[in-house]
Parts: sequence; C-alpha cells; structure tokens
Amino acid sequence: MVSNLGDWRRTHDCNALRASDIGKKVTLMGWVQRRRDHGGVIFVDLRDREGITQIVMSPELNKAVHEKAENLRSEFVIAIKGEVASRPDGSLNEKLPTGEVEVNVEELKILNTSIVPPFMLDEYSNVSEDVRLKYRYLDLRRPELKSNLITRHKLTKTMREFLYSKGFIDVETPFLTKSTPEGARDYLVPSRVNPGKCYALPQSPQMFKQLLMIAGFERYFQVVRCFRDEDLRADRQPEFTQLDIEMSFIDSNDLMNIMEELFITIFDKVMGIKLEKGFPTISYDEAMEKYGHDAPDTRFELYLKTINDTVKGCGFKVFNEAVEKNGCVKAVNAIGAGKTFSRKDIDDLTDFVVSLGAGGLAYIKVNEDGLQSPIVKFLGEDVAAAVVKEMNGKPGDIIFFGAGDKYTVNLYLSKLRLKVGAMLGLIDRDKHSFVWVLDFPLLEWDAENKRFAAMHHPFTSPLDEDVPLFDTDPGKMRAKAYDLVLNGSEIGGGSIRIHRSDVQEKMFSTLGLTEEERTYKFGFFIDALKYGTPPHGGIAFGVDRIATILTKSTSIRDVIAFPKTQKATCLMSDAPSFIDDKQLKELYMKFEIAENK
Amino acid sequence: MVSNLGDWRRTHDCNALRASDIGKKVTLMGWVQRRRDHGGVIFVDLRDREGITQIVMSPELNKAVHEKAENLRSEFVIAIKGEVASRPDGSLNEKLPTGEVEVNVEELKILNTSIVPPFMLDEYSNVSEDVRLKYRYLDLRRPELKSNLITRHKLTKTMREFLYSKGFIDVETPFLTKSTPEGARDYLVPSRVNPGKCYALPQSPQMFKQLLMIAGFERYFQVVRCFRDEDLRADRQPEFTQLDIEMSFIDSNDLMNIMEELFITIFDKVMGIKLEKGFPTISYDEAMEKYGHDAPDTRFELYLKTINDTVKGCGFKVFNEAVEKNGCVKAVNAIGAGKTFSRKDIDDLTDFVVSLGAGGLAYIKVNEDGLQSPIVKFLGEDVAAAVVKEMNGKPGDIIFFGAGDKYTVNLYLSKLRLKVGAMLGLIDRDKHSFVWVLDFPLLEWDAENKRFAAMHHPFTSPLDEDVPLFDTDPGKMRAKAYDLVLNGSEIGGGSIRIHRSDVQEKMFSTLGLTEEERTYKFGFFIDALKYGTPPHGGIAFGVDRIATILTKSTSIRDVIAFPKTQKATCLMSDAPSFIDDKQLKELYMKFEIAENK
Repeated sequence: MVSNLGDWRRTHDCNALRASDIGKKVTLMGWVQRRRDHGGVIFVDLRDREGITQIVMSPELNKAVHEKAENLRSEFVIAIKGEVASRPDGSLNEKLPTGEVEVNVEELKILNTSIVPPFMLDEYSNVSEDVRLKYRYLDLRRPELKSNLITRHKLTKTMREFLYSKGFIDVETPFLTKSTPEGARDYLVPSRVNPGKCYALPQSPQMFKQLLMIAGFERYFQVVRCFRDEDLRADRQPEFTQLDIEMSFIDSNDLMNIMEELFITIFDKVMGIKLEKGFPTISYDEAMEKYGHDAPDTRFELYLKTINDTVKGCGFKVFNEAVEKNGCVKAVNAIGAGKTFSRKDIDDLTDFVVSLGAGGLAYIKVNEDGLQSPIVKFLGEDVAAAVVKEMNGKPGDIIFFGAGDKYTVNLYLSKLRLKVGAMLGLIDRDKHSFVWVLDFPLLEWDAENKRFAAMHHPFTSPLDEDVPLFDTDPGKMRAKAYDLVLNGSEIGGGSIRIHRSDVQEKMFSTLGLTEEERTYKFGFFIDALKYGTPPHGGIAFGVDRIATILTKSTSIRDVIAFPKTQKATCLMSDAPSFIDDKQLKELYMKFEIAENK
Repeated sequence: MVSNLGDWRRTHDCNALRASDIGKKVTLMGWVQRRRDHGGVIFVDLRDREGITQIVMSPELNKAVHEKAENLRSEFVIAIKGEVASRPDGSLNEKLPTGEVEVNVEELKILNTSIVPPFMLDEYSNVSEDVRLKYRYLDLRRPELKSNLITRHKLTKTMREFLYSKGFIDVETPFLTKSTPEGARDYLVPSRVNPGKCYALPQSPQMFKQLLMIAGFERYFQVVRCFRDEDLRADRQPEFTQLDIEMSFIDSNDLMNIMEELFITIFDKVMGIKLEKGFPTISYDEAMEKYGHDAPDTRFELYLKTINDTVKGCGFKVFNEAVEKNGCVKAVNAIGAGKTFSRKDIDDLTDFVVSLGAGGLAYIKVNEDGLQSPIVKFLGEDVAAAVVKEMNGKPGDIIFFGAGDKYTVNLYLSKLRLKVGAMLGLIDRDKHSFVWVLDFPLLEWDAENKRFAAMHHPFTSPLDEDVPLFDTDPGKMRAKAYDLVLNGSEIGGGSIRIHRSDVQEKMFSTLGLTEEERTYKFGFFIDALKYGTPPHGGIAFGVDRIATILTKSTSIRDVIAFPKTQKATCLMSDAPSFIDDKQLKELYMKFEIAENK
C-alpha cells in the first residue's frame, strides 16, 4: 500500500494556497491531521510544518483515488496532486490562512502509514507529561511545541546575526575539560587513554572565554551547552544552553549598552515588539529593600519597606526581637486588598509564608472606621498609626509584615509580593520589564564552611575603589557585576573580570584556597593572566529561560526538543542506562552501589 | 604602574588609519608587538585583533610619555591618545595597510604588563607543538592561528546564514544521551541520581535528527559537537564539530543539489572563490577502480586500472595468483616519470608500498629502445607489450603495478597514486575538486565477527530496486548514500534513511542484532517509525576538516581553539585529571587500574 516518493515534488507548502491560486495544479505533501467523510466525499486536513490545507477526494472526480482515500487514517503521510478550487459558499474557514480554498485530488500517494497515536494531536489534550515525553516525537507535532522550537530557532538566529554584525567571533570551546570543583557538581567523563582520570563537562566556558580575551580575540560569543549535576528543581535541566559573551577594552556600561541593543533587536525581530531604549538599573541593595529579591519583577510596584526605626521599642515582641537581633521588620502595602481579599485569602497567604519560614503573617487592615489587626494591641495605637502613615495606608488597604532575619524575611515577603500582586491583578502579562541589577556584593559569607564564597564567581572584579578592602573588610567589597532581569527572572549575568594576576591571586586567597589548591586548579590561568591580559568582561544569558519567557511557556521543558525529567532521565530513549561490563572495564571503572547507598 | 581603562575608549582599531586620517586625534588600544628605539625616539608596533599601527613616542612631543614608554616590553597592553601623522619619506611600510601613517602619542596608559613570553609571536617560530599547546593563549595571538579561527567563524556563519535562508530550523539535541554501542566507543557520563547508570556523549545526533523528521520539522540543521573515544590518529580529536542536516520529502538529488549550493556559497563568501555548478559524481565502484579509494583526489587523473584479463595466465606468479585467488592486478601509468624519477625514487616508493602491505613494487619503464623492468622476463614479451598498450605507455613513462587481494592493492596503490601525483607536480594546491561518491554498498562483511556491518550506519536506505536482496544476497545491496569529497578528503557523508519500520527491523536483523538487542537499543526508535514517518534523508559535514582545507592547515589542531593532543589531553589546563574520592563516591564509582593493566 505504501508508495515511494518517486519523481513527485512539492509545488507548495500547506500554508501557501490562497484564492488567487484557484485553478492551479499543485502537489502537496504532509500528514493527515483529520479525515471527515461527508456525503460520500472524503475531506482531509493536510498538515505540514507550515500549516494546513483542506484536500477533497470525491468519487465523481476520481473513483480510484477516493477508494484509496478510504484507507487514510490520522498521521498517515501522503502526497497529492490536484487542482486548487474555491470552497463552496458557507464552508469557508476564516481561522485558516488557506481557508478560502481546497484542493480537488486527482492523484494520491500514501508515503507511509501510522498506527493509532497514544494521544490526539489536533486538540489540546490533557495527557500526562510522562506520556508526552515518552512519545516526544508526536508531542512535537503539536502546534504549541513546534512553534516554541521555531521561536527558539529565531531567538538564537537573531542573537547570532546581531553579534555577527557587531564584530563578535564565534569560537567553540572544549566540552571535555578539567574538573575544578567550585559551586555546582561537575558531570565527569572517565578517560580510557588516561586511566583513573576524568574530564568534566563544562559548567560554563568561563576560563576559556577569558583565555580568548588574553589571546586577543576582543569580542567572542558562543551559543553553548553547559552542564550542572544539581538536584533538579522544576525549572532546571542537567544540560542547558547559554549565550556566552566576552569583550575586551570595555567597562560595564559599554557591555550593558550593547546587550540592551541585543534585546531590543530580539524583541523586534522575534516578537515584533518594540522595546524602549534605556533599560533601568537598580542597585542590589535597593532591589533587596524594595523587592526582597535580587531579580525583581518590576512590572508592578508594591514595594517592600524596612520599618525598623518606626517599630523599634514597640510592644510587639516579634518585631522588637527582629530589630534587636540585627534582623529586620519589613512591610508591604497591598493597596485596595481590603476590598477584595477574603478571610480565607489571608489565611492562605499566612500558610504560604509559614511554609517559607515565617512565624506567621502579621497584617493591618485599614478600614474607614479604623485599623483591624491582630497585632495593633501589641504594637500600640501610636506605633500602628505611624506604620500606617509610613506605608501610606488608606482605607481599603492591607499592610502585611515580615519580621526576623533579613534573609528569611526577604525570601517570604518577596514571594508574598508576587502572589499579592497577581491577586490584585497588578501583573500585566504582556509587559516586558527589563532591569539591570548592579553593585552586587563581591563575596558572601559561607557560615557553614566559615569562609567567603564568590557571589558570582571568583573571576569577578571588585569596584576599583573597593580593592583596598581586600585587606581590611572583604565582606564590604562590591563587584563590577550586572544581572539582567526580565519580569522577575534573571535572564543573564556577568561582570568585568579581574585582569591582573596579583588581584586574582588575592581573590583566591580571600576565598580560602590554599596555594596548593590554587596552583592545581587555576595555576595555568593565573599564569595566563601574566602575559598581557587586556581589561575585559562578559556576560552569559540563559537561552532556555529567555525562550520560555518569549513563548509564555510554563516550563523550560516546553522549549527544549528532547528534555529530561526531574530525575534527569529521558523517557523516550531511556537514558541513562546500565553499561556493559566490557565498556566499563575499558575505562578501569566499577560501580559500588550497595556500599554507598 | 598599571592604570585602569577609566573613560578612555577606542576611536579606531589598529587596522583603520590611512593617509586620509592624517591630523585626526585618535585613541588606540592593543598589545606591544615590537618596540624599537631609534635616535632617542621610541617606536611601537601596536597590535589588536584587526591589525598593526605604528605609534611614536618622542621626548620632544611629550617627555613624560616618552619616559613611561621606556618601560614598555613585548605584549604589554596599552592605550594611547595621539595625532595621526604621515610617516617620514622612506619609512613607509607597503606591507601594512596602515603603513602610510603613524600616531604621535600624547598620552599613554599601561593597562597591563607582561612577563617575557616563552616564544616570540612576531615571527614564525619553530617552537615545539607541546610548548605551543601549553601556552595556547599566546599561540592564538599569532596571525596564522588567529586568522584560522576567524575563517572558521566565517565558515559556520556562512553555513548558518545559507541554511536559515533555505528554511532550515536550528534545533539543539541532547548531549547526555543513551549509549548504543555500535561502531566507535562512546564517552560515558555516570549519573549520580541514577546510580550505576551512565549517559553517553553523542557520536552524532543521528536518531534525534530522524526523530525531528518524524516530528514534522522537515528541514533541520545544527552545528554540533560530537564525541568518539577512539585511538587518536594525527588528524582526529576526541570531540569534533559537525554540520548536521536532515530533510523530509526529498531524494538524494534534492539534497545533493542544495548542498552543492551551500558549498558554492561557502567558497564565495569565505574565500572569494567562484566554484562551478554541477559537482561531478562517481560511483563507489568506479572510484575504487580508478582511484583505489572511496575519497578520490580528483584534482589530477593518473587512474588505476585493473588488468586481470590482460595478465591472466602469464608467467609471473605474483600476478597469476592474484587473479586466481579472486584478487586483482592493477596498474597505473606515471606519465613522464621515467624522465624525472631516479633509481632511489623508485626504491623509496617500493619501501613506501611495502610498509602498506605490498610484497614489492613491480614496474615497467618504457624507454625509447624498449622496456626496462625486472618483471618483463616473467611476464613474457607479449604480455608486457599488451600491458603497456592497455596502459597507453609511451617512452618516458613508468607503469607501476599492484597485485594481491583487492583491499590491500587499493590501499597502497591509492596512496602511491597520491605520492606519484605529487612528485610529478600534478596536484594544483589552489584547485578545489569536489566529487560526490554514490552507490556505496549497503553492507560490509565483517570477517572477524562473521556478520554484516552497515557501511554507513544502520539507518541508511537500500536502493529501492535492491530491497528484495535482503532475502537473497544482502551483500549485493547498494545504499542511497552519498559522500562529498574535496581534494581527496571526505568532508561529508549522508544518506536517504529507512523510513519504514519493517525495513528498519529487517536491517537490524540482517546486521545480526537479536530481537532483545534491537528492542533494548533501538526499540523506541523502531516504534517511532510506525507513527507516520515521512521519507527523509540527511548529511553531516566535518567542520574541522573543512576549516583545515580552507585555511590550508596541516592539522585540524590548527583550526580548533583549544585542541587536545594525540593522548587526548589538554596541555594547557591539564585535563583530564584525577578526581577527589568524594566526587567519585557521589557517583558510586571506583577505578580499578592495577587489576586491569
């Protein structure tokens, strides 16, 4: 029953035919999206990558074709020759670009058959994600996923074309690299020719791109896969794609300007959206104060505010203790929430913040006739009034509070802010709010290991004026780092790098690396810095995350052709898998699972 | 001594200034390529990515700048402000695009210093490759390597732009895939979350790109890294880059035509070379007969010819046995070699073919006064004359012979042909001879394992007319496969794929896979073929190899930014390396080296 292609070739794709083509002889190929029998005539929606065209097989026109067409089932692959005709009055389909025409089929080839698919493709189906992942090649036939991947293609295409035009050179860096355990876990690759040794898959090509600056390439980019063996959260994959960029002879502003231009171009070319020039900037400290987060969603205000000074010494123990223990009390005014939030809403929000580490959720509801609140009696009328005034509370508002150590308060209030913002309808889903976050701390104190850790990575340069603090108060140093945040997602981050080997060594020793560790892990890199390293800096963007935002997807799995589950498995091919002893032996390798479990 | 960039920014690169810029105030940045002191004035060749500009620091113009300039050494990174001036008569440098001008320096910043490099960069240096690889970031500063990588960038850029314009979609496929041991060894990646299991790094995205055709993407491409854990030869790397392409609803010729257009575009855009349309084709059988190789160098003729019929039954035992044992006797006429080849040349050629498995090198030298040859007495005068006639031997020619099993004869005669062609000056280094090799055998007999192996890979479709041979004489089947050969290098290969699951299963069973193996390794793929797989085919090109040819490099290491040695190590970063026990334990992994050695 199945024929070969022979000398048949398409004349048009399935999104091409219009009323102006009526009368033309055409050859189309594609998949049977849907077959309908109607008054003895067979109608098929023929689908290819570009779209859908209705084709008609009637016994009057060609009896043999009609008979053959009776075999057609969903997802059969067919080729047809026929004549473009106008659809009869009343059967025009305005939803389809080809909806004015149909093709009367004169010849039909069945190029391949299909067994019944495990789920329907022509309507949004509620099948479980596991089944969709197992039959990924079918799920990818659905318009949503296909269009996601095409948008992703346009995204990287636009990135490349922009960077080509700006003199960036695309250089490929190795995947089989040296393991330098810092931060996340490396994926290891045992070497057969070097028994007992392993390569690591790169977490990012950080050192390589800096070496390319040392080598004089001046403007480098790469769209590159990176790997992190982390415990996977909902929106992480063991492998992810990064737009990796590095430039020489520049400072933060030069880089930020060109990256702003990149995103204006992306939104224009990929989405047809014109963004305004001049992305706003915010300091890390201000972002933490106003949003409780270093990746603020700036589509709406609803700012947090520290009110330590106002509540200091008040009668509410929770607030008082927070202030005394060098923590904080912060408030957010949910303007108008008093009119719409039910008692249950507030209970739910309380449960929500408690699940994030809060002791409870204190609030003051500002009514026309006074304040309604479980905490006013502790605060005292005066302090309560002062707080309401400070938060600009008006009748109809609810002011929520957080108190405790800064980290925890910011954690739950930042999420509360997002939730309340959504409940109040403040988040415009069609808005694209970019913001650069600047002046990050260079170091974070790692309480567990009692040492400093690099907030970005150990190659980030401190602000020039902060360099002397290396010797006096390293924790105060600020970094020449910048994150680009879009709608509350960090889509990229980078920094001006340390380009002097003495400063780089100082950085490593501040991070507590012994001289031996430094030499073993980074010796060659510190050496490289000694041979005329230009001032340089760069940035890396998360391609998966940007594609997710552009396509309004809920998961990065929806913008990756063949993603992995949260257990890092591929349900389609069943990777990873057990390996032959012979293969393992060639690598001098053995697994010892019982012992370790 | 080292300054910051501050608010200094380049006005020009170091390849920009011309006589028309004289009088302009400019800011340049780059590396000190060379410093010369001449009559109390300091001249520096300032180098950046684009080129070199001479800058001048004279004590008359600015005493402080001149003093600072005395500190400058090779590879210091500097920034200068100054005025463009014409060079004094007699000091013009016609080799430099900027050779008419120099810049009189008014301000000088030293942005970074450099210790003395381990080798000189400004002249071709004969330093060992090991030292060059250790200091790769310095070697990359040399014009040859930098220009190689920029050519490679232009190559992939042109490939992409061409494929974008033809409706190909760039889709990223996974790097953490399932191991399906066939052909070369996989690199394995142990999974921490799935103890005892491993991913494999892809040898090529073969199944994924076919799955994308099943998913309906119709035209796919990717510039993608692939991995093979093979014993490395001079021109192999553990990781290599492939231009990977797949198309639906096409046959071999459609694909070959579009790929020809791709290479015409590449040569035009990257090299400024206009290629002729209509790349020639040759069948596998003809290539083996005339060139002894399936990747023939068609820049010159010097064809091999089988002369079994002519020598059959002759008195020369070596020839006779070859014919009788189903082997071959082949000859090649080195036209004119008699005038230029010395006795020693012939001895060297003999040693050469013997090292490749020949028993010796029989030849007939055609002189004006008769034949000069150690074998004529065995052949007999008549057979010798017939052979000379068949090979069109004229006075001044030398006819070389090979005899034995076909594989060995073709192996050494094909290499002899290349050597003799070079000695006779027949190889035009500026010529680019493309040829498509077609009609490959589908299967090869694997004598060791006594089974068939796929000549390309098990997804290659047989010719339609050869499908019945599956049941009768599988070894006779020809493949819908095509290799693109340039100057004797296979730069790409592909095929029309099997798109029917029954044929695919037949293929796997012909290859001797048990049903269990088939299901375990390829079950999901055979299933996928059942859901409406379109006719499709594709090709993959070796980007490293193409870049090597375009840049006339002698090794692919010269077109890879950070290559590995033949022991698969990186001499710069010292990858691969020994791994912490803690890291190995997290993977439930152990090395057992003594036991296996």
